[in-house]
Amino acid sequence: MTLTTDPLVATLIGIVGAANVLREDADTSPHLTDWRGRFCGRARGVVRPGTRAEVAAVVAACQQAGVPIVPQGGNTGLVGGATPDTSGDAVVLVLTRLNRILAVDAMNNTLSVEAGCTLAAVQEAAAAVGRLFPLSLAAEGSCTIGGNLATNAGGVHVLRYGNARELVLGLEAVLPDGRVLDSLRGLRKDNTGLDLKQLFIGSEGTLGIITAATLKLFPQPTASATLWLAFDTPSAAVHFFAKLQTRFGARLVAYELLSRRVLDLLFKHFPEARAPLPEAPWAVLAELVDGGDDAELRAAVEDFVGAASAGGEPGDAVVAHSDSQAKALWWLREHVPEAEKRESVAIKHDIAVPVSRVPEFLRLAGQTLPQRFPGVQILCFGHLGDGNLHFNLCHVDPAQNAAFLARQDEVNRVVFDLAAWLGGTISAEHGIGQLRRALLPTYKSPVEMVVMKAIKRTLDPHNLMNPGKLFLGEGA
Amino acid sequence: MTLTTDPLVATLIGIVGAANVLREDADTSPHLTDWRGRFCGRARGVVRPGTRAEVAAVVAACQQAGVPIVPQGGNTGLVGGATPDTSGDAVVLVLTRLNRILAVDAMNNTLSVEAGCTLAAVQEAAAAVGRLFPLSLAAEGSCTIGGNLATNAGGVHVLRYGNARELVLGLEAVLPDGRVLDSLRGLRKDNTGLDLKQLFIGSEGTLGIITAATLKLFPQPTASATLWLAFDTPSAAVHFFAKLQTRFGARLVAYELLSRRVLDLLFKHFPEARAPLPEAPWAVLAELVDGGDDAELRAAVEDFVGAASAGGEPGDAVVAHSDSQAKALWWLREHVPEAEKRESVAIKHDIAVPVSRVPEFLRLAGQTLPQRFPGVQILCFGHLGDGNLHFNLCHVDPAQNAAFLARQDEVNRVVFDLAAWLGGTISAEHGIGQLRRALLPTYKSPVEMVVMKAIKRTLDPHNLMNPGKLFLGEGA
Repeated sequence: MTLTTDPLVATLIGIVGAANVLREDADTSPHLTDWRGRFCGRARGVVRPGTRAEVAAVVAACQQAGVPIVPQGGNTGLVGGATPDTSGDAVVLVLTRLNRILAVDAMNNTLSVEAGCTLAAVQEAAAAVGRLFPLSLAAEGSCTIGGNLATNAGGVHVLRYGNARELVLGLEAVLPDGRVLDSLRGLRKDNTGLDLKQLFIGSEGTLGIITAATLKLFPQPTASATLWLAFDTPSAAVHFFAKLQTRFGARLVAYELLSRRVLDLLFKHFPEARAPLPEAPWAVLAELVDGGDDAELRAAVEDFVGAASAGGEPGDAVVAHSDSQAKALWWLREHVPEAEKRESVAIKHDIAVPVSRVPEFLRLAGQTLPQRFPGVQILCFGHLGDGNLHFNLCHVDPAQNAAFLARQDEVNRVVFDLAAWLGGTISAEHGIGQLRRALLPTYKSPVEMVVMKAIKRTLDPHNLMNPGKLFLGEGA
Repeated sequence: MTLTTDPLVATLIGIVGAANVLREDADTSPHLTDWRGRFCGRARGVVRPGTRAEVAAVVAACQQAGVPIVPQGGNTGLVGGATPDTSGDAVVLVLTRLNRILAVDAMNNTLSVEAGCTLAAVQEAAAAVGRLFPLSLAAEGSCTIGGNLATNAGGVHVLRYGNARELVLGLEAVLPDGRVLDSLRGLRKDNTGLDLKQLFIGSEGTLGIITAATLKLFPQPTASATLWLAFDTPSAAVHFFAKLQTRFGARLVAYELLSRRVLDLLFKHFPEARAPLPEAPWAVLAELVDGGDDAELRAAVEDFVGAASAGGEPGDAVVAHSDSQAKALWWLREHVPEAEKRESVAIKHDIAVPVSRVPEFLRLAGQTLPQRFPGVQILCFGHLGDGNLHFNLCHVDPAQNAAFLARQDEVNRVVFDLAAWLGGTISAEHGIGQLRRALLPTYKSPVEMVVMKAIKRTLDPHNLMNPGKLFLGEGA
């Protein structure tokens, strides 16, 4: 297919200019494969509009031509939600040129940004006026805020500040027919009808394209305390979480669990890394922040943790005494995914259960999986304060990893059934995309599926907006 | 109409029993008039189902008969959202018999309750396990949690804990066709498709009937500090809010503004009330909470406020030194509505603007209104930390109040246009109901209205679920 034989491409060039309609493999390929390289598709072209009006015109043109649209931000998703299928029918619509900071209102604690701003740029715009935008992810240098909102991104500070959904006051989106829904308000309270922005947040681009948002900001903390805690059991870690939160409330902003085996893996692949404490079955990395000074907060935290530790929970604890010590502790947590990559840990889960059920989940999974899959190695870390575990698996013998991976569907069902049985979810923060779409109807109720599809059909009757994501099959 | 001539009534009696289908005026009248007595309707009957299954059966029966349903909780709403129209066609479906606490999970900080529980009962169930359910309203003894969620209730602690929407993790609702949408999960993170519960929260019963919810709990604070602050200008109050929040973060849970004129009115109608500070143009009632002890928190707050006051903002300040002093300060704030009632303050608004624009709103409204309506008296109080003002008006001369009230529509337009011009809303927390439905299309964008109506039609194609609320006209 060349430029001249596809009238839609000619139309798109008319809208965004030839330089912003990518057609050569070298230009399009970064947009046709997902970040982990597990999904690879084809497209009619990759279009990069530069304004909201161009997005609307591109969407309207595709709608008219009956051509599917795959919205894409920084292309850092983990479930294939921004990768087109292999038909080559779709247009990939890349939002990264919509990267303007629209308005900053420090006294209202709000920031309005275009969807293509990177998360890091949003954080920086907030910091420039002495405020915090608390969403924080490994991919923050390249992921876009539009993608964060379309997927309702999570991260390490959800415990305190909520998921991406809870950080949005206003939203602007282009609907599947090209109309613009403008709800770019910066209000803490607005009870005037259905809260439509909620539909688009977390919809993975299936209902429209987010083009801008008004985000909540927070005071920039001036003090922080970072702790490493050792526990004998997950249950002890959960109990101490409740105590720490009762004492320090919203000052507790992170509570990250790491199993002994995960730390061993880390030290194997990063021999330069140092264990903060002697061996213990479970470790927790916790962070507290405040608006006073470091010394005061750290003293209060040390007093509290010291007294608790004297009582037996945690078994051991260290409070970082400098920012560099704190960074060293976070370095360990942040390098877990890379250590797993080097180990070729292939079967990954992003489940959540009620925080109170985490110990039971770990106990039951620790019993069931080795029985069903002898030699399985469980590598568990995650956001304990949210009940969200990255529960990853490989074979103890690397030579048998491929055979283990071949049983992935079976493994997934065991893990997901257990999470569901405990009132949990098969995807806490990564989403459904293509990766989990076939399983969704198993774990949602039939009525939930029916209502979701009815909403999808209402807003996107021709199923042209990111088809094949979230929902399996042609008609949503 | 008697029991025997209305086959639907016979069906309803078959579902819930004769004792729970009210037909006599003496029984039905409390359900046919709103709390303020501004809306009065008629109904075919008042039905009180006792279980989710009965709610579903009642809804299905009404759907089959083509009869509208008006869901009602504690009937404490302020916009006529739970009052039927005057046709006498509708069935009023009262949820108060669904008043069971379903599950408490202190370690997960969640509470599952049926929709008919009063807000006070929900607060008590949380307190019984050492937790806080932070939603707090004047009507909490009689309003129901289902009504709170259907209207996305606000209150004095939104600043810290968010609106009702932000306090919900899971929801169960009966759809207009009688099917049950069961999403009663207690998860902090769940990215598995559209977040359907968001549609029902704040929809004022127009999309279905909330029958149960899983709510977020928080640690019960162990310390509190209550302050009364004096300011010369709203701008000074807004600036100090930012400073206080920067220093104390989420420990600041309330920041309530009262104008001098509001306080004067309070002292006029409650001569026993004492002014906490000498006269100043504006007062703020602030509250902070913490998980440590009172003395520590109060000392930190006193240090901070003392230093700020020495710098000129606030002009004066007092920190309550006992719980009874704190209660006395809150008594003043809580009795403002009663003082206004005694004064016959008739034109009330519940607007919000960005916090940063509150001073401008007050300045412009203070200029415009007296020009347009000579003799107008502005009585302004509200949740300054949310930008939410209860901006109420009467005539200085009580004898001219009726003439002033006759110009209510004109007055409203001035106030609402000004709020909208500053990026605000015509209803921050009270909702739309019948009271503001005619104005909604003026202040929402056409696309917002179209999408809202499309969602309504999708879920309630025959417009039988609380018709005439939110949306004006027959077909939504």
